[in-house]
Amino acid sequence: MSQSAKRVVLVSRPVGEPKASDFRVEDHAVPTPGDGQVLLRTIWLSLDPYMRGRMSDGPSYAQPVPIGGVMEGGTVSEVVATNNPGFARGDIVLSRAGWQTHALSDGKGLAKIDPDLGPVSTAVGVLGMPGMTAYTGLLDIGRPQAGETVVVAAASGAVGSAVGQIARIKGARAVGIAGGADKCRYVKEELGFDDCVDHRDPGLAAKLKAACPKGIDVYFENVGGAVFEAVFPLLNAFARIPVCGLIAHYNDTEASAPKWAPSMMRNVLTKRLTIRGFIVSDFAARHADFLRDMSGWVREGRVKHREFVTEGLDSAPAAFIGLLKGANFGKQLVRVGPDKA
Amino acid sequence: MSQSAKRVVLVSRPVGEPKASDFRVEDHAVPTPGDGQVLLRTIWLSLDPYMRGRMSDGPSYAQPVPIGGVMEGGTVSEVVATNNPGFARGDIVLSRAGWQTHALSDGKGLAKIDPDLGPVSTAVGVLGMPGMTAYTGLLDIGRPQAGETVVVAAASGAVGSAVGQIARIKGARAVGIAGGADKCRYVKEELGFDDCVDHRDPGLAAKLKAACPKGIDVYFENVGGAVFEAVFPLLNAFARIPVCGLIAHYNDTEASAPKWAPSMMRNVLTKRLTIRGFIVSDFAARHADFLRDMSGWVREGRVKHREFVTEGLDSAPAAFIGLLKGANFGKQLVRVGPDKA
Repeated sequence: MSQSAKRVVLVSRPVGEPKASDFRVEDHAVPTPGDGQVLLRTIWLSLDPYMRGRMSDGPSYAQPVPIGGVMEGGTVSEVVATNNPGFARGDIVLSRAGWQTHALSDGKGLAKIDPDLGPVSTAVGVLGMPGMTAYTGLLDIGRPQAGETVVVAAASGAVGSAVGQIARIKGARAVGIAGGADKCRYVKEELGFDDCVDHRDPGLAAKLKAACPKGIDVYFENVGGAVFEAVFPLLNAFARIPVCGLIAHYNDTEASAPKWAPSMMRNVLTKRLTIRGFIVSDFAARHADFLRDMSGWVREGRVKHREFVTEGLDSAPAAFIGLLKGANFGKQLVRVGPDKA
Repeated sequence: MSQSAKRVVLVSRPVGEPKASDFRVEDHAVPTPGDGQVLLRTIWLSLDPYMRGRMSDGPSYAQPVPIGGVMEGGTVSEVVATNNPGFARGDIVLSRAGWQTHALSDGKGLAKIDPDLGPVSTAVGVLGMPGMTAYTGLLDIGRPQAGETVVVAAASGAVGSAVGQIARIKGARAVGIAGGADKCRYVKEELGFDDCVDHRDPGLAAKLKAACPKGIDVYFENVGGAVFEAVFPLLNAFARIPVCGLIAHYNDTEASAPKWAPSMMRNVLTKRLTIRGFIVSDFAARHADFLRDMSGWVREGRVKHREFVTEGLDSAPAAFIGLLKGANFGKQLVRVGPDKA
C-alpha cells in the first residue's frame, strides 16, 4: 500500500475563533492493518460544533485532542482491508476515525451501517448523532405536550431541524431561530415549522415574543448568547430547557455574566424551570427507539433534512470555522472519498 | 361572641429586610360563622421563608398579600363553632388561616389532623409542608443514590434537617451547612449528619470541599448566596439541584450577577447538571407516600426535629424577621393559643 493518505492535525489551541493556522494537513503513507485490525477509508467526515471543545484543554466531559494529534470526528468509512473476522471488505461502518482519509481500527466502536435505511451519510446526520441528540434531548428532557410551544435555534442545522420537526409530530408548536431570510424561509416552508425568527434581526426579542403568543414551554438550548436572552423572559411555568450546546460561546475568551444571570435562580424557583445538560451518549439506551422512530419519520417524509457538503479533506478546517459562524446551511459534511473506491 | 380576636396585617411592602412597621396588629371582634362555615381558633402559626415572597408584588407563582390584608400562613387550628356538617367542635385541622387568632372557613382546604401521628404542631413541620418539601425535592428531583453526597443549607431548620436525615436513610453522605457552632453541633450530633460546615466561617469554600471529598451529587438549594458560590465548583457530573428557596436573596433590593453566572450554562452542559425549581404543591400526588414514610421515620427516631417557638400572635412579625436572618434554631412556630380552649 504505497497510496498516499492525509490527515488534519491540531497544531495549536485556538484562542477565540479557530484559524486555518491552528490546523495542518499532513501527507503520509496509507497504514497497513496488523493482526485483528481493519483499514478504513473515509467517505464522509461529519463536522459538529462539539469539536470546538476538543480543541481546548479546559475541563469538559472529554479529553482534548493533543497538540499534533489528529482532530476527532465521526466518519462514514469503508473497510478496505481486514484482518478482523468481524468485518469484510466493502463493509460501510460508522467510526470515530477523525479528520483523515484512512485509519486503522481494532473493530471496537465500529458500527455497521445498513445502507437500506437511507444514504449512508445520514448515519452521521439525521439518523446519527445529531438526530439522536435532537430526539433524546427533546423527548426525554423537553417532553413536549400537544399544544405546547417548542423553540430551537440553529433551526436549519442538523440538530435544530430535527428538534422542530419532532416537536410538530408530537403536536407542539415549533418556532425556529435561524440566521438570515433564506434559512428562515427553508425552516418554515420546507421543514414546516410554525414560525421562524432571524437571530440577526435587531428586534429578535420582540419578534420571538410575537412568534410565541402562549410563551415557551420547551427551549432546546444549543446556542446560548443573544438567543437565550430573548428566550428567558418568555419561559412559561414548568418550562424545560435541555442544554446540549452553547455554540455562541465556544469562541469566548472571557466569560462575562449574561443579562439573565441575576434573576436566573429566582426564575428557576418561581417558574419551576428545569434546566438540564446532556450529551447524546447519556441516552445510549434509547438508540434502538431513536433509529426505529427516526428512520420511519424520514421514510414517511415527516422529518426532512439537508446536507451542506464541502469537497475533500483539505476543506475541513475552513468548513469547521464556517460552521461556528453559521456559514453552513444544513448538516455540515466533508466528502473525503467516493462512495465506492 | 364578644371575645376579642387579633390579626396581623401587612401595611407596606418591605424594601429589603421587612421591618416591624411593615406589619400592624389589629384587634377585632371574633367573627360569627355563617351558613356552611366553621369558626377556627389558631393554636399554632407556622412561619416559613416563602412568606417573604407574598409580601412583594413581583412575578411569582402566587398572588401577593394585599396591603391591609391578613398575612398568609399555615396554621393548626381548632374548630370552635360549626355550621358545616363536615366538621365538629373540637376537630383539629390544618388550615391556611394566616396570621390571626380566629378565622372563618367554608371547610374547603381544611384537612383534619390525626393527633395519633404525633404532636399536632408537626402538621406544619416535619409531617407538614416543610417535611414534604424536603421529601419530594430530595427524593423526586435529587434522587440520591447510596454512596453519593448530599449537601443542604439551613441544615438545622425545618426543611434542611429533614433533607439530610432522609439522605442518610437512603445511604447517602449528608453534609449540612448551618449558622454557628451550636447549630453545627446539633446537626452532626443530634441529627446524625456526616458533617456540617458553618456558613459564617470565612473559609466556607475550603471547609465545604474538605467535607465533600467525593464532590457533591445533590445540592438541595434553599438559600442561594454565598453557599451556592461554595457549592458550585464542587458539583459532580450529573449532579441534581432541586431549588425550593433562596432565602439569602429574599431581601435583595437589587439583583447582581453571582460569581457562578458566567460559567453557569457551560457547567450545566459539560457536567450534565439538572437544576429544577419546585414548590411542594407540585408533588401533591406524593402526599400519602410522604405521610406514611415520614411518620414512620419520626416514630422510629430516624428523623428528628426541633421546634423554635415564640409566644403569642404579637410575636409573629419579629419572629419572621428573625427567621430570614437565621435567628431561629429549628422549625419556627408561633404559639397563638392553647391546645384546648
